[in-house]
Amino acid sequence: MRKVCVVSGNRSDYARLKAVLNAIQERQDLELDLIVIGSHLLPDFGTTIEQIRSDGYSVFATSRTIIEGEDPASMTKSIGLGVMELTTLFDTVSPNIVLISGDRFEIFSAAIAAAAMNLHLAHLQGGEVSGTFDESIRHSITKMAHLHFPATVGARERIVRLGEMPENVHLVGCPSIDLVDSIPEADRETVCHRYDLDPSEPYVIVIQHPVTTEFREAGNQVLETLEAVEEMGLSGLMLYPNVDAGSERIVRTIRGMEEAGKLRRLHKYKHIPVEEFVPLMRHAAVFIGNSSAAIREGSYLGSPAVDIGTRQNRRERGANVLNVAHDRNLIREAIELQMDHGAYPSDPLYGNGQAGHGVAEILATAELGPVQKTLSY
Amino acid sequence: MRKVCVVSGNRSDYARLKAVLNAIQERQDLELDLIVIGSHLLPDFGTTIEQIRSDGYSVFATSRTIIEGEDPASMTKSIGLGVMELTTLFDTVSPNIVLISGDRFEIFSAAIAAAAMNLHLAHLQGGEVSGTFDESIRHSITKMAHLHFPATVGARERIVRLGEMPENVHLVGCPSIDLVDSIPEADRETVCHRYDLDPSEPYVIVIQHPVTTEFREAGNQVLETLEAVEEMGLSGLMLYPNVDAGSERIVRTIRGMEEAGKLRRLHKYKHIPVEEFVPLMRHAAVFIGNSSAAIREGSYLGSPAVDIGTRQNRRERGANVLNVAHDRNLIREAIELQMDHGAYPSDPLYGNGQAGHGVAEILATAELGPVQKTLSY
Amino acid sequence: MRKVCVVSGNRSDYARLKAVLNAIQERQDLELDLIVIGSHLLPDFGTTIEQIRSDGYSVFATSRTIIEGEDPASMTKSIGLGVMELTTLFDTVSPNIVLISGDRFEIFSAAIAAAAMNLHLAHLQGGEVSGTFDESIRHSITKMAHLHFPATVGARERIVRLGEMPENVHLVGCPSIDLVDSIPEADRETVCHRYDLDPSEPYVIVIQHPVTTEFREAGNQVLETLEAVEEMGLSGLMLYPNVDAGSERIVRTIRGMEEAGKLRRLHKYKHIPVEEFVPLMRHAAVFIGNSSAAIREGSYLGSPAVDIGTRQNRRERGANVLNVAHDRNLIREAIELQMDHGAYPSDPLYGNGQAGHGVAEILATAELGPVQKTLSY
Amino acid sequence: MRKVCVVSGNRSDYARLKAVLNAIQERQDLELDLIVIGSHLLPDFGTTIEQIRSDGYSVFATSRTIIEGEDPASMTKSIGLGVMELTTLFDTVSPNIVLISGDRFEIFSAAIAAAAMNLHLAHLQGGEVSGTFDESIRHSITKMAHLHFPATVGARERIVRLGEMPENVHLVGCPSIDLVDSIPEADRETVCHRYDLDPSEPYVIVIQHPVTTEFREAGNQVLETLEAVEEMGLSGLMLYPNVDAGSERIVRTIRGMEEAGKLRRLHKYKHIPVEEFVPLMRHAAVFIGNSSAAIREGSYLGSPAVDIGTRQNRRERGANVLNVAHDRNLIREAIELQMDHGAYPSDPLYGNGQAGHGVAEILATAELGPVQKTLSY
Repeated sequence: MRKVCVVSGNRSDYARLKAVLNAIQERQDLELDLIVIGSHLLPDFGTTIEQIRSDGYSVFATSRTIIEGEDPASMTKSIGLGVMELTTLFDTVSPNIVLISGDRFEIFSAAIAAAAMNLHLAHLQGGEVSGTFDESIRHSITKMAHLHFPATVGARERIVRLGEMPENVHLVGCPSIDLVDSIPEADRETVCHRYDLDPSEPYVIVIQHPVTTEFREAGNQVLETLEAVEEMGLSGLMLYPNVDAGSERIVRTIRGMEEAGKLRRLHKYKHIPVEEFVPLMRHAAVFIGNSSAAIREGSYLGSPAVDIGTRQNRRERGANVLNVAHDRNLIREAIELQMDHGAYPSDPLYGNGQAGHGVAEILATAELGPVQKTLSY
Repeated sequence: MRKVCVVSGNRSDYARLKAVLNAIQERQDLELDLIVIGSHLLPDFGTTIEQIRSDGYSVFATSRTIIEGEDPASMTKSIGLGVMELTTLFDTVSPNIVLISGDRFEIFSAAIAAAAMNLHLAHLQGGEVSGTFDESIRHSITKMAHLHFPATVGARERIVRLGEMPENVHLVGCPSIDLVDSIPEADRETVCHRYDLDPSEPYVIVIQHPVTTEFREAGNQVLETLEAVEEMGLSGLMLYPNVDAGSERIVRTIRGMEEAGKLRRLHKYKHIPVEEFVPLMRHAAVFIGNSSAAIREGSYLGSPAVDIGTRQNRRERGANVLNVAHDRNLIREAIELQMDHGAYPSDPLYGNGQAGHGVAEILATAELGPVQKTLSY
Repeated sequence: MRKVCVVSGNRSDYARLKAVLNAIQERQDLELDLIVIGSHLLPDFGTTIEQIRSDGYSVFATSRTIIEGEDPASMTKSIGLGVMELTTLFDTVSPNIVLISGDRFEIFSAAIAAAAMNLHLAHLQGGEVSGTFDESIRHSITKMAHLHFPATVGARERIVRLGEMPENVHLVGCPSIDLVDSIPEADRETVCHRYDLDPSEPYVIVIQHPVTTEFREAGNQVLETLEAVEEMGLSGLMLYPNVDAGSERIVRTIRGMEEAGKLRRLHKYKHIPVEEFVPLMRHAAVFIGNSSAAIREGSYLGSPAVDIGTRQNRRERGANVLNVAHDRNLIREAIELQMDHGAYPSDPLYGNGQAGHGVAEILATAELGPVQKTLSY
Repeated sequence: MRKVCVVSGNRSDYARLKAVLNAIQERQDLELDLIVIGSHLLPDFGTTIEQIRSDGYSVFATSRTIIEGEDPASMTKSIGLGVMELTTLFDTVSPNIVLISGDRFEIFSAAIAAAAMNLHLAHLQGGEVSGTFDESIRHSITKMAHLHFPATVGARERIVRLGEMPENVHLVGCPSIDLVDSIPEADRETVCHRYDLDPSEPYVIVIQHPVTTEFREAGNQVLETLEAVEEMGLSGLMLYPNVDAGSERIVRTIRGMEEAGKLRRLHKYKHIPVEEFVPLMRHAAVFIGNSSAAIREGSYLGSPAVDIGTRQNRRERGANVLNVAHDRNLIREAIELQMDHGAYPSDPLYGNGQAGHGVAEILATAELGPVQKTLSY
């Protein structure tokens, strides 16, 4: 039986890991050890460790790995701290495989620790192109990983061009689409009622994270978005950003607008569980900001989306996404276009809902060769 | 004026950085800050920090970054520690560019810290293929670096295929060849006298490092090499290995053989300054083990070399290198062949001795664009 | 010339160090190196590093040492991180003496690092008795320190009873009193105007930090205080708490009350520079909460103070302080008593304003014996 | 049932903890979690973790906490690393009590981590006076600990004078004496045979650790000892020193003497299990060096001992110990005196062999009051 150690660092990678966690637990030939680090443990980001536990997963260990400071130096030092902490925990668990998803700095720690300890590293969501330092992290992880689970055809191609052996690159789709499929639909009234929204009006969802390579601008950038929403008098929901260099500036901009009596029609949340978030997406008039969910889950759900700025640069996207710069007028126009258009048809760009089982099958059966890697060219 | 922060972690990257350090110091438009970490500070590895200081470089700061333990977990944790320490030091220095060389774990720390802090990262010796976890580190660094200084045509090609923008990849050759050129020749008698070798006999050089992905075998591997040398009754010099998972096992094997009365004709050293090492290479009958110097400097000097095991797998090499497995009989045969052959003609595979100035010129004049990177495809 | 390295970790120890910093800078026989860590670097706590720089001190280095998480585990890990970081920085500075003040966890790091590195450690504010884990820290520091600068007669006695050699224990008073003396007085109108307070009404100052050994209660504890202030309809100023296990709970209680429309008459600040804070204290009707300033500076200024809960337990105090439990009715009664009483006469319990020069004189001239310590009994 | 987490950092504290570990395991009302850190994991110090496992204790987790470098800065940084690592592990274990023994830097980490996390801390061997930075560590731990288990009447008195509440200070004797009692006697022939000693001659035991506050002298200090032994032509055993600032210098001195053909009659060991060490002590002619075992177990066994230098300064001792300075002539004289005198009568100064049960009983039944401590005066 193989022991798979999964590391989750925040709500977004957790959303993508859930379908895989479930599929691993269903198999007799895989044992699961879950380690929870990063912003899952922080009250400012919803203490999502509690969500993980209430979802029924048993957590082997947690570790506080975030150094406070809202700037690149704190994020960098947190990477180092994560590597040190995970070394001790991987040593205690002794897994056959370490599984991670995505490209955030917490996850970079897990990749470095696993690969340097000669463990087999499996990586979901590699090969994508986007923006921010996340892109460098993502490809660096690819160069350390032994099993790759890209979500799209384009991502698969890029991983192979990066010199990985094709037989180790498995196109399974994105497990977040599995999750979307597994979540019971809810009608618009129920959703509006649950989140205290007026069912007679369209509502929007706003999520805007800082771009770490532009973190000094994060406050001004979100200001353009929120002023556009404010000027249009839209109601809806807003999620606070991930912990990243720049997130504190976004929070301060929000507070400042609130103190000026604005944003009263936007309900703010630190975290919404994915089971409630997907139904919200199904009925939202427009999904605004720079979250990858608008592109990923959005393509499958056909959600009209306005993607702002460079954070998702070059990420593969369906017809549902309009990209605009940080300019309140452009943002307003794009929102209007999407509200006029309404829902798009579903697009299987990011998978067909079978990714979780696909990943688990390969984790259980793939030959685990030597940990030593080399370029294919 | 641009501020360049150079990080050196051990004697081998230092040897490659020296020509660049000199070229930086000669320019008015570059300021140098040197940070010294890793095994430079360890008595077991020759406390080479003292060599750096006596070479006339002023050291901005040092940091102890090695966690003791001779195994992958200690090496991994040391990477994390290095990231944390270098964050604070980079923050104190505030450089425009961080320059590193090679692929060892100490240097991986510096790459992660620099890139995550949004500093421009320049990297010497990328794009090579070899073996051990170093190969994963090397390509991961490439995916984080902004300026690449490969040593060979093949390495340049591979960096471009890895998705780096061609305009950021500068083929300059390996600065270690500059150094070779700058070192005054010494005749064979002088060299033999200096190292207490009998001038009437040929002498060999033995350097064998552990392969981190095979660290448990390190003791047995070196045993084959040393028994071959012993059986042939060869005299010469031996250097202790780098600090790496497995190095302690090598040291124990050496001690064990010594206690059994062997290895009396091999003088052992923790460190030999490069100014003395190059003349030693010029006159050595055979260079035995798995050091990259046998391939790199060796191709230029035409040194007959026996490369043992997988550590240099796939590294570009000239005609001067024979590779064999860890088997004392095969090793003996290869040594005999090389002793019969004698010196090879010089091969410019790793450069023509102008790398240091080439690197410094580009550091001073290249446009430093946005730190945000993306794949070229 | 002796090199003195001073470490400051937050606004409260900084306030006590200032008079000493000034006195050190005035001397030709002392050189000052200032290292700034901890919450000085955090926006949530006012980024007081900027205050330090604008006060004209040159900062040798800063280091982010706070691990996020609002609980004892994060605080503990931050101590460890601080020790590691300060080791590298002390090694870079090579001071003759390390000087610290107080008993907070950031400062504990500095004490451990200095003493373990065989540096002479000088400590302000030892020997006091109070409450929270700070008390354990304070006496532990005393057992590592070589020069002691207690603020009161009682503290001096306790340090000697703790087994320290009497000749190393120097009663100089508290340097925060020097600072009080050096700050120009401002009349009540000016002060009220500066902080937007109605000059026709009395105003209060509220500062309540979490007690780390009761951190789960921190939210409820501050609720009692704030409800008492609210019920009395008092206007005034409130400072956000130090970063400590429990501080996040206090912030959430404040936010909750604000959302319920309360606390409108209390202006909230993350930080008030001491030059403005002392004039505020001079004219405040009551100083409410658990800040040591109410006891220390308060005794000298004769400020009517209501000290709540166990945080200042057993700290020596003048007649100006009433202590009550976390009960809104008791708190209200105490506030009323103090408002009726008005200002108290000045009490030299914590010094006469000459501490800074006294400390600097001893740092410059005391014989620095062997670092090896032993009990006096 | 109470959960007791015991942290061991090296062979010497382990020897003292063994009797307590056994007594805890015998009780139904205590659960044991053992964490192993520090030099237990280092090949240079005998990888004693294997001994612990073969003694039948189950180890919850191990953690590499030693930063390489043989100097005070490395030791200091290792303290910080230990605090960070143990925070995560204590958080995983969630014990009611953390139990430690002694005063070495690894153990200091455990004390800081436990106390700062608001766990009850129980400490063996507090209140002793000795020398080196260990003395500062020991009393600092006392100021953080909640339950004290001193080994002697004098130590108990000192802990109470240090301001600890007498009801928390339990004189139980030293558990190392329990262990001595539990080890079957072996006759001289057997012992000599086992260690390849000539039974027709007296033999000596030499253990000399570096004094961290004099670490630069460690090489010269041990040279005096070993030259005295060499000049007298004595045969016997020698143990390598603990990992501490200075230990590398001792090892180099030993190597140097060996290379000069000396020390041939001294068998050298990295570690001797206590079950074999006690019989060796029973029959040794003299115990030479600065190990506390010569004083502690030695007083009970009546072993003639020559204690050299300042490391055990002021430690309570029986008639069996002669202290001399680092001078080969004085050392030789003292050895001669002890050889003439022969065995001393047993002295119960360090206990009567019931300490383990005494400690376990108190751990199981003592009221665990509030973690908040305060001085008794």
